[in-house]
Formats: sequence, C-alpha cells, structure tokens
Amino acid sequence: MTTGPLGQGFANGVGLGIAERWLRAHFSADVCDHHTYVVAGDGCLEEGISHEAASLAGHLRLGRLVYVYDDNHITIDGPTELALNDNVAERFDAYGWSVDDIGDVANDLDTLEAALLRARAEEERPSLIVLRSHIGYPAPDLTDSSKAHGDPFSDEETAKTKELLGLPVDETFWCPRTSWPCNRSTVPRGRALRSEWAARLDAWTATCPVRGRARRSRVTGMGGGTPRFAPSDGPMATRKAIKVCLDATHDGLPGLMPGSADLTGNTGMALAGALAQSVEDPGAAWSTTASAKHAMGAVMTGMADHGGTLPVGGTFFVFSDYMRGAVRVAALSGAHVVYSWTHDSIGLGQDGPTHQPVEQLAAIRAMPGLRVIRPADANETAQAWRIGRRTRRPHRARPVPPGPACSRVHRRPRPRGRAPRRLRTRRPGRRAGPGDLLATGSEVPLCVDAARLLAEAGTRTRIVSLPSWELFAEQGDGYRAEVLTRASPCCRSRPPPPSVGSGTPTTPSASTTSGRPPRARW
Amino acid sequence: MTTGPLGQGFANGVGLGIAERWLRAHFSADVCDHHTYVVAGDGCLEEGISHEAASLAGHLRLGRLVYVYDDNHITIDGPTELALNDNVAERFDAYGWSVDDIGDVANDLDTLEAALLRARAEEERPSLIVLRSHIGYPAPDLTDSSKAHGDPFSDEETAKTKELLGLPVDETFWCPRTSWPCNRSTVPRGRALRSEWAARLDAWTATCPVRGRARRSRVTGMGGGTPRFAPSDGPMATRKAIKVCLDATHDGLPGLMPGSADLTGNTGMALAGALAQSVEDPGAAWSTTASAKHAMGAVMTGMADHGGTLPVGGTFFVFSDYMRGAVRVAALSGAHVVYSWTHDSIGLGQDGPTHQPVEQLAAIRAMPGLRVIRPADANETAQAWRIGRRTRRPHRARPVPPGPACSRVHRRPRPRGRAPRRLRTRRPGRRAGPGDLLATGSEVPLCVDAARLLAEAGTRTRIVSLPSWELFAEQGDGYRAEVLTRASPCCRSRPPPPSVGSGTPTTPSASTTSGRPPRARW
Repeated sequence: MTTGPLGQGFANGVGLGIAERWLRAHFSADVCDHHTYVVAGDGCLEEGISHEAASLAGHLRLGRLVYVYDDNHITIDGPTELALNDNVAERFDAYGWSVDDIGDVANDLDTLEAALLRARAEEERPSLIVLRSHIGYPAPDLTDSSKAHGDPFSDEETAKTKELLGLPVDETFWCPRTSWPCNRSTVPRGRALRSEWAARLDAWTATCPVRGRARRSRVTGMGGGTPRFAPSDGPMATRKAIKVCLDATHDGLPGLMPGSADLTGNTGMALAGALAQSVEDPGAAWSTTASAKHAMGAVMTGMADHGGTLPVGGTFFVFSDYMRGAVRVAALSGAHVVYSWTHDSIGLGQDGPTHQPVEQLAAIRAMPGLRVIRPADANETAQAWRIGRRTRRPHRARPVPPGPACSRVHRRPRPRGRAPRRLRTRRPGRRAGPGDLLATGSEVPLCVDAARLLAEAGTRTRIVSLPSWELFAEQGDGYRAEVLTRASPCCRSRPPPPSVGSGTPTTPSASTTSGRPPRARW
Repeated sequence: MTTGPLGQGFANGVGLGIAERWLRAHFSADVCDHHTYVVAGDGCLEEGISHEAASLAGHLRLGRLVYVYDDNHITIDGPTELALNDNVAERFDAYGWSVDDIGDVANDLDTLEAALLRARAEEERPSLIVLRSHIGYPAPDLTDSSKAHGDPFSDEETAKTKELLGLPVDETFWCPRTSWPCNRSTVPRGRALRSEWAARLDAWTATCPVRGRARRSRVTGMGGGTPRFAPSDGPMATRKAIKVCLDATHDGLPGLMPGSADLTGNTGMALAGALAQSVEDPGAAWSTTASAKHAMGAVMTGMADHGGTLPVGGTFFVFSDYMRGAVRVAALSGAHVVYSWTHDSIGLGQDGPTHQPVEQLAAIRAMPGLRVIRPADANETAQAWRIGRRTRRPHRARPVPPGPACSRVHRRPRPRGRAPRRLRTRRPGRRAGPGDLLATGSEVPLCVDAARLLAEAGTRTRIVSLPSWELFAEQGDGYRAEVLTRASPCCRSRPPPPSVGSGTPTTPSASTTSGRPPRARW
C-alpha cells in the first residue's frame, strides 16, 4: 500500500496486521501467514493517528508488524527540533512495542538486515526499528536539508550526486548489470512459493464446504439471508436493525469483522454470542478500538486492502468528522469497507450539540467515491447492509465506483411496517412531482406524519424515500423518470451534489425545457 | 472551558497554556500570570489529538500546565483493558512531561492538594498527575461499572448512595451548611485579587501608548492597514498575499499569532523578520506545531478563548478534514480564530489526489457558525483578512454568528488587477441575471476567461465574485437585489446551503412567483 496523507499508512499497516492474524487464527496458517512491513517518517509519528494505531497494535500484541522509523530529523519547515522533542523509543515502549534503536546505519545493509531479522523473530510484540537517516544523501548540497523534502533536485545537484555515487551522469535511468541476475532469480523463487501456497489452499478448501464457498466468493462475497422485518415486530431503531442484520449474516460471511471505537454496544457492532478480539482470542468475531475513531477508519482500509475480511466500523455519525481523513483515502482507493454511522439525528440523547450531527450528512455526501445510504426503517437498513456487503466489483464500470459504503442508522425507534409501501426501495405507485415529498432516513417518518396532516386538510401527497442519491443516480433514465415526474421541482432545478470541487454556485441545467426526462444527477 | 468531543479539551488546555505564556513573555507577568488546570479521562488520552497536543506541550515545556488524569479504568464498552494497555506515565515521560502517579487517592483531599502544589512548583515541564479513581463511587451497585458512564442513576440507586454518604435522601438539592461560609469567603478574596490585577494593568497600560491601544481594543481588535495591491505589482498567489497582509498588520495587532502544522513557509504563516516560538523565545511571533493539524485547530480555540491572542492557523485546504473535529467546536462556541487554508485548487503541485481538495469546500460551507471567505485575488485576500481579524462581536445579533473565519487562499498565482472592477467586493455595475456568471476563489479567473471567449462570440456576460455566501446572506434584501436580478436563476432556484442537517432534497422556494426580491439564503 502507498498512502498520501501523513499517518494514514501507519494505521493501514496495523489493519494489515490485524487482518493477517485474524485470518490465520480464523482459518489457518496454511492460507495466511506473513509479516507486515511499514516505513514511517517523522510526520507519520507526529500525527495523532499514529498514537491511536500504535496503542491498538500494542494492546493486541501484533507480533508480525515490523515498522521502520526513518528518522531523518528533517520536516518541511526545517529540523524536526523546531516542533518535536518526543523520545520515540520510550513512547513506543509505553505502547508495549519492541523498540530497537539501531542508530545512524541507513546505508549499512548487513546491520539493517540483522535488525529486520531480529524484529521478525519477535512475535509477541509489534516491532519498531529506529533508524537515523539523512535526507537527500549523498547530494553534496542537499543532504540533511529541508529542501530535499519537497523540491526537485536541480540538474546540477543531480549530476554532482551521481558523480559522487560513481554513476554515469548522462544516463537518466541506469541499473548496474550485476543486480540483474539477483533480481531475476526472485521470479522463479516467487513462482515456486506461490505454487506451494496454492496447493495448501486447495487442501484447506477441500476439507470443508464452507471454506470452499468462502474461497469461491473471495471470503467477503458470501451473504446469508437478508432479514425481513414485519409490522408485527414493532418499532425498531435502525441501529438495532443493523445488529440483527450483522448477526443474521455472520455465519455465512466468514470474513465479516465488525468493530467500533468504544461504542460497540451503542452502534450494534458486537455480534451475538461472540467475544471481542484480544490477544487470547485473535480470531474473535468483533473488535473494539478504544476511542480511536481516526485509526479505526484507517485500520479498516488496511484490513480491506489485505483481503479476506470485510470490516464494518460503527460510531456516532457526528464522529465521521474525526474519521474523515481515513474515509477519504478509502474512498479514493476504492477499499471495500462499510461504515455504520449511527445516531443520525439531533434527537440523540443527553450529549448535546457537540454530538448532534447537523452538517455531517451534506459533508459526507460531498465526498466522491463514497456511496451513502440513509435507511428510513429496519427493512431499508437490511437492504443497505445487503448492498454494503456485496462483493467489491473489481472494475470501475459504473459512474459511481464501488468502494466504501456507509449506512447511517438512527438511534430513535422508527415506525416499522406502518410506513406506506412506497417507502420501500421499490418504485412508488405513481410518479412524484411538485407538491410531493422526497426524504431520506429519519426525515421519512416525519414526512409520513406531514402527509397525514396534509391529507386531513384535503391535499394528497406522495412520499418518496430516497435512501441513496448515488444509487438513484446509477439507475437508468427510465427508472428515474418512473419515480419522479419531469415536472418535479427537484428534477427540474436541483443542482448535482456538491462533489465537483468547484465552489461556483451552479446554474441549474436547462433540462426543463427539453422534451426528454431530465438526467437528474443526484 | 468545557468541551464535548473526546480529546478536544486536552488540546484546548495546551492552547490556554500557550496563550498565557505568550502574553506573559510578550507583555508582562503583571497582566498575565496563571496556571491552567485540565481534567482528562481515558477517552481523552486514547484520542490521537492527545498525542499531538501533549507532544507540543512537552516540546514547548509549558510548565504552567497541570493535567489530572482521571484514571477510572472504565469506558462505555467496559473496562479499559478491553482496548487499552498503554503505560500512560511512560508515554508522557517520553513527551517530556513531569509525571506524578499518586495512586488510588481520589477521595484523599490532602494528598490531592499536595500533588497539585508539587505540579504547580514544576515550572520547567507540563505536569500530569495520574489519579486512580472509581467511576460511580460510592454507589453500591454502580461503582466501577460502565453503566455509571452514560446511563442515569435509578431513583433507588440514588437513594442508596445518598444514604451511604449520610445525605438527606428526600432533598434533591442539598448543600452542607458548613460549606457556605467557606464558599462565601472566596467572593471578597476574588474581588481583592481582581482589583490588584486591574491596578497592575493600569500601570502597565500607562507606560506605553501601544499598550493602551491594545488594551482598549481588547488586544485583538487592532488592525493596522489593509494592503492594497495594484496591477503593477504583477500576479500574486493569494497564499503569498495572506503573508503580505499578516506582515502589514503585525505591528498594529499585538495579539496576532499565526502558525502552521509544518507548512509555515508554504502557507505564508511565518512573519517576516520574526522567530518561531520556542522554549528560548516563548513570546516569538509565529509558531509551528509539527504535523499536528488536529491539535493545531484545538490549540487555536484554547488560545482564542483565553483571550489576548488572535490565532491564525494555516495548512493545506485538504487537511481541513484532519482539523474538522476542532473546527466544529470552535464554530459551535464562537471562538475568534482564523483558519487560512491554502492550496485550494486541484492544481496544487506534485502531491496528487490525496492532497487535492475536491469536496472540502462543500463540506466546510455546510458547517454552521463558520464564515467561509474564498478570495479570488490578492485584494480579496486582504479584505478577507480585514474581516477575519475584526474584533469578535460579543453578542450573536446577526443571523450568522461571529466566530471562526476561514479564508481559503490558492497556490497558483492569480491575475491581479487585470480582473474587471466588478470582481471586487463592491457591488457590480449592473445586476447579474440569467446567463451571467457567479464564481468564488480560483474559479473567478476561469470565469473571466470564459466571459472573454463569450464576448468574442458576441455574448456579453457579467461576472460576480461572491467570496462569502455567509457575508452575502447577512446583507439586506436591497443590496442583494442590487447584485443579482430577481430573474437570476441562482436567486430563483438555488437551495439554501446544506447546513440544515436534513438530508431531504429541498424543494426550491416559490419566491420566483412573488413580487418581492427573493431572500436568497446563501
């Protein structure tokens, strides 16, 4: 994995480590058995997410993690000492990591190898190798300079450096001939290792039909049933419904791994009859990550990109703000993760304004590559989960790429089954137009009440529950025109969702005047 | 200060400490001379922001900080051991804090006082007092229970606890009579201390006219001039313009304190001829906070709420995502801070998609209580800074409350002065209507180019630069109708900015059909 924003990769690595150990414990070392290596810089360790992720890795004693701290003492602003005086070794010791400070040996390959082998041998704790290095080495004017951080080398400096290294100055790309045989020898070696692994995988699969299904469907593609809720079940908060859905699919979805940042019970992420993941039980069904919401997001991305697991992360919707850096990387990279953001209403209890989501819905809908589903009742929650857990499509054929799905679910019990049939994700009885109501999530029941009042006053109103703008946009023109009349004011003038990056107030398209049904982009 | 989301208060405290020491160093101990006390729980220390803020406090050796870690071993999910095994004392020692683990003495007032006095005496390093406590103490059934974290006590449990404490069970509010005289005696003591402080402040003010002005204008209200840029100055990136503006106002604005998370140079936050804040120079004019963007945001709020300083924080606009938790608390509490988010364009250099702001503008505009200004050129940047630095109005009389302002500035050089006069914040020559262009920030020059092409094709187009939706909305109907014609499609059909919290696709208001100019809410 490569990541962009500082600190994300640090936490992604912990996700890789969790997925590896979880699969090893859950299935067998025959199919999953490897170390995870991470190279991290000063900036990574300065970010708060490094604390959250390192604390979690230490707590879980992920002994297969090998982190190398590229300690070059240089940041963009200048020397790290301008802003940083942490004792990194002591800090990671406090997290329960094994720390190996090997000093100023960045170009001593034997010492590096020995340190990596020591770190591999340590299986009880994650390992951090502190390596003093020199940015820009051995450029005569840019070694240990902050200019080597972001600015490209000048031609002159490049030439001087090549000369110093004994490289041909005129060739822009050059590889020593002696390294070719070495590189080439790795190909047959890798091929043999892969064959051995495939044989082990076949043997493992043959022993159990569930394993066979799991393998065929890439572990995460299995589903189990989608629960259906009947009016007789009574009202149920959608955050309770998501738990029922996860429990129902748990058996048939071996890679399912829900978790939460200290809100496991509140967000319905604790699977029934299962234990929390721990050192003693690394294959347990669900996990808790302290209050570390940002790291939870990035760890989920690491688990998804590792493969074999389907991470589902729950927290209060307002804290999607805390996770936003990680969510964006997941959305950009198309990682198959599911966020379950609950308490999506200002009526969320005693916590007050800091915990009330107000702008989060608009903010998260604005993020490209994220499919937002806002279920209005228990059955829509089940459908949201069905969509969220679908096998990730490998190619981006659709206008909205597959990738992170987030189903946001509410805290307050929602009337279930009492809502008219047109609230379902199926198409409504007739098209909705001017004067009708479109709503999502917790506003749908409010609209149902409003429609009832309007009906008493003699006005008939249709309600369309539109749980996902992205999914609606993916439908064909025909379907969309069946749901909404051409004359619908929302069709006519609603600008596309604000995901275009331009702050320019957009002029509504002139599609009203054309004969064709408008291509509503929301 | 009280804060809601976990970890914010931890970093706010560091902001209070920075403001106190900065004012003390910059002016004198006569006017600013106090300690800052913070009570933090497990959740606060689990959040990444605690790492960023603690690292900064240790680096700056903020000796007047006294933190008490209320170590009750209970989180919402259960015992902290479910997810946390940090050695907190060692961790804070690694940050350079003085750590005092006083054990299970939460009800031993003498020991607590002695520990607080020891922490006060430590002026070289921030202090952390680790205090083992028991949540719900002494409730017989809820002591040390996670149920005591969020759920209210039952009447029965309340009665049992009161009985245990020897309190009258029937009185819902009760105060021992013996504590009244003690409480009352603090009033004259506080009054005397306040008088002494006022006398010292008067003496300090008298010695210097600048100080007098600083005091009259509450330190932050002073301004200096607002630079004007002429076409002869040539093109200038707005991120350069903000630096010119800060430099120009620095002398007249004693409380000005810009800073950045390791992008001080890139974002124009390093004041000319000034040093970075450090242990050796605690009154220096600007600061750098490693890569700690989230903590930077919360530290700024702490500084603003302390008073006497005007924090200005710069980073890449895409990293407003990392700061979002802190920005929201500032917006909610109306703290007077200015964010200067630069690189507000996808054309930001070699960093690639993870550093390109796409959805951030829509996301940040959706946040209530935040005034967003997106300047199109150097002069609009100067006006944005003029507005941002204005003295905070103490009462929320306007529909958009005063509070955090963010001026987002671009990296790419913008044509300056070449833009037609109507690009200024002044009203345009004639009202813009259908077929004209509204734009903000980096899109304005694009629209100028577009208008030129349209003119060549025989179509005359007006351009309105609308740097701030919130400021435009604060203007009277008359002004708004002068800028935009009633027939303007944007007036007619643009929904209000998505700050309402409801995900319901809003139906455009019917104001088109009314005779009055529309009350555009954007």
